[in-house]
Amino acid sequence: MQRALSKRLEANKLAFERLTEAEPVLIDIRRAGEVVPGFSANMILTSGAPTPWPDYTGGQREGIIGGALFEDLAKDRDEAIAKLDAGEIKVGACHDYGCIGSLAGIYSASMPVFVVENRASGGVAYCNIYEGKNPRRLNYGVYDEGVRERLLFVQNEVVPVIADALRDNGPIPLKPIIRRALGMGDELHSRNSAASLLFMRELVPSFLSLAASGDGRVSRAVEAMTEDHYFFLRLSMAAAKATADAARDIEASSVLTAMAFNCRGFAIRVSGLGDTWFRGPHAHVEAKLFEGHTEDEISWMGGESPIAETVGLGGFAQACAPTLQDYQGGSYETMLQRNTELYAITVGEHPTYLIPPLGFRGSPTGIDIFKVLEIGTLPVLDIGIAGRDGGQIGAGVVRPPLECFEAAAEAYRRRYSDDA
Amino acid sequence: MQRALSKRLEANKLAFERLTEAEPVLIDIRRAGEVVPGFSANMILTSGAPTPWPDYTGGQREGIIGGALFEDLAKDRDEAIAKLDAGEIKVGACHDYGCIGSLAGIYSASMPVFVVENRASGGVAYCNIYEGKNPRRLNYGVYDEGVRERLLFVQNEVVPVIADALRDNGPIPLKPIIRRALGMGDELHSRNSAASLLFMRELVPSFLSLAASGDGRVSRAVEAMTEDHYFFLRLSMAAAKATADAARDIEASSVLTAMAFNCRGFAIRVSGLGDTWFRGPHAHVEAKLFEGHTEDEISWMGGESPIAETVGLGGFAQACAPTLQDYQGGSYETMLQRNTELYAITVGEHPTYLIPPLGFRGSPTGIDIFKVLEIGTLPVLDIGIAGRDGGQIGAGVVRPPLECFEAAAEAYRRRYSDDA
Repeated sequence: MQRALSKRLEANKLAFERLTEAEPVLIDIRRAGEVVPGFSANMILTSGAPTPWPDYTGGQREGIIGGALFEDLAKDRDEAIAKLDAGEIKVGACHDYGCIGSLAGIYSASMPVFVVENRASGGVAYCNIYEGKNPRRLNYGVYDEGVRERLLFVQNEVVPVIADALRDNGPIPLKPIIRRALGMGDELHSRNSAASLLFMRELVPSFLSLAASGDGRVSRAVEAMTEDHYFFLRLSMAAAKATADAARDIEASSVLTAMAFNCRGFAIRVSGLGDTWFRGPHAHVEAKLFEGHTEDEISWMGGESPIAETVGLGGFAQACAPTLQDYQGGSYETMLQRNTELYAITVGEHPTYLIPPLGFRGSPTGIDIFKVLEIGTLPVLDIGIAGRDGGQIGAGVVRPPLECFEAAAEAYRRRYSDDA
Repeated sequence: MQRALSKRLEANKLAFERLTEAEPVLIDIRRAGEVVPGFSANMILTSGAPTPWPDYTGGQREGIIGGALFEDLAKDRDEAIAKLDAGEIKVGACHDYGCIGSLAGIYSASMPVFVVENRASGGVAYCNIYEGKNPRRLNYGVYDEGVRERLLFVQNEVVPVIADALRDNGPIPLKPIIRRALGMGDELHSRNSAASLLFMRELVPSFLSLAASGDGRVSRAVEAMTEDHYFFLRLSMAAAKATADAARDIEASSVLTAMAFNCRGFAIRVSGLGDTWFRGPHAHVEAKLFEGHTEDEISWMGGESPIAETVGLGGFAQACAPTLQDYQGGSYETMLQRNTELYAITVGEHPTYLIPPLGFRGSPTGIDIFKVLEIGTLPVLDIGIAGRDGGQIGAGVVRPPLECFEAAAEAYRRRYSDDA
């Protein structure tokens, strides 16, 4: 028993090192179909643990259908459903392809993705691009002519400029941007305002070169990058995915490597337990809804952005972002307390991601399922809230269900019983 | 007595309204000699209450001499001193010319200044431009070939680009930038990182136009604007000066309209007491010094940046900037407490400048000299610390001397005795 514990602690220490020593660098922006290994032209990815197509419901189902239509895989909704039913259009889980999904997390082959390499591990992760501040968007389970136009605008007008600038500039290390943004009011999940500005600022010299060579689209790209709190989130998510993946498959580690949900429920992955997802019901949410919306509209249509919390950001650095009171509710005292409580369920304090309001204490990093069960404190996730009819209707603080942790602990004990 | 009190409270309410309803807008960047009323070619301005030339000592004296040399008003140091002694080179106080001085606050005729208009009052204020992050600079009482080169670089390479961009863009309202920066870790005195990025971002479309028309200097201008925490300070100071000036000369108001110091001591101005400066000894400082420096090096060479605190920013919004612990010392708990205590000495809570970590409470605004004396809490000022041999050697929290407030209260009672 003592030996098993010692082995587990050793393994968790290694997981913590992999999480904190990661060096995520933005190296490229390419179409998913070109760059994501195993991606095919007739494939739609979506958020959460892998689930058979017929089991997707509500906004997430609509998102998948929308992705198929956007990709011109079917001429209309009925044909898209028929082809999905027939398996002619395939549905995959983002995590299985090195991708990470925001809300419904819809990926199709032509969509551009950020390509982020973890220079410490060599691993690569992908995230597609923020659609903009309109609450009606594909990643919130809405697809119509307006959503399509905006996706094409981002794809054809915004992204090529950023991609050109990135090629001109060279790879951009994301860790220094994230570190600095934590001192500027961001927690890198529900708030990325400073990080978006800092990222834009990195590209300014290249934007100026592009402008000098006659590219008139740069202003609109800058506008899209800085119009609200979310542009950098997709970079933060890709960085977090590239970071968390480095901590996968460490024998005997009980540290989380992913948290994700879909319309069917929440699921977690644990380093020492391979690719298995430990599933549970939907998360518990304390939401602050946009005016005119009510709690009974809240709809679960997927989300993998809790990868931020998996690496010590988002809810685990919530104290950095006092303005989130206004956006997702709760007092700042509550936020400070909530953030501080998370040290009890994590392996250590991040050496680079510091929380100035907590006296520059490193963010609590490396969620240990056994600490969660022992202490009874569940991870805190800062997320956007989707509505029944699609679109964003608010934001809030979410706690994953205890059942996922119980299921993972049981599997852990079974798997490592020799040492117990 | 009751009637006098009621008149004072009424007057202070008006001062508070003038302070909070101000709408500072950057309208131009011009040479001081061209745009500042009353400025002449043989004039050097410096920080603090007006003081005869022979009384300036140490770094501030060196700064004045440096300004004269930079302006080519003398061929060498000895000739500069002789001309200053003879009154051929005149020394003026920044505040008397609508200007506001950072540290030694040296202005000469050729120096470019930000021109900020308060659209609510019609008043205009000026502030010259940040020299850059090298601790050796003219506003810290140092003048040599390196300082001269940097001043010329800023004047000839950086400022013209920003001025051209501003002309292309049109006037830039500063209040929205300040408001937003308070939610991004700035307090707009010792930290202006987010405001500098937000200001730069406003100008990006115009920078791109300039680049498209072949101006190759834009990248360096952007670099100068965002290289550290201070570029926006001069805009924050000009905005604050244009704001505070609107609250001057309100009959019976006991609200501060300026705090400034020079090598001789600290001084304050009070709305209902005209242009009189109420002088006292040097401020009390809790400093955090850069490595290798000691307390006995601390030197007072002037500073008018406490105009920020006069309008509810800087120390009065310190809770917004938790990273300042690292720069100027103190724990975040201390910062929160210090910030909260200031409500007791101010007229009201700013309706626009909100402090997210204090539950979006408006910043304490409108310092009432009688409340200061009654409560015994002195204003908190976030300032850079100069060294004996010139240059910045640290930063810290400063409290003005009680004597200034006592002298002002006495003058107030004398002036308004009819009502008392």
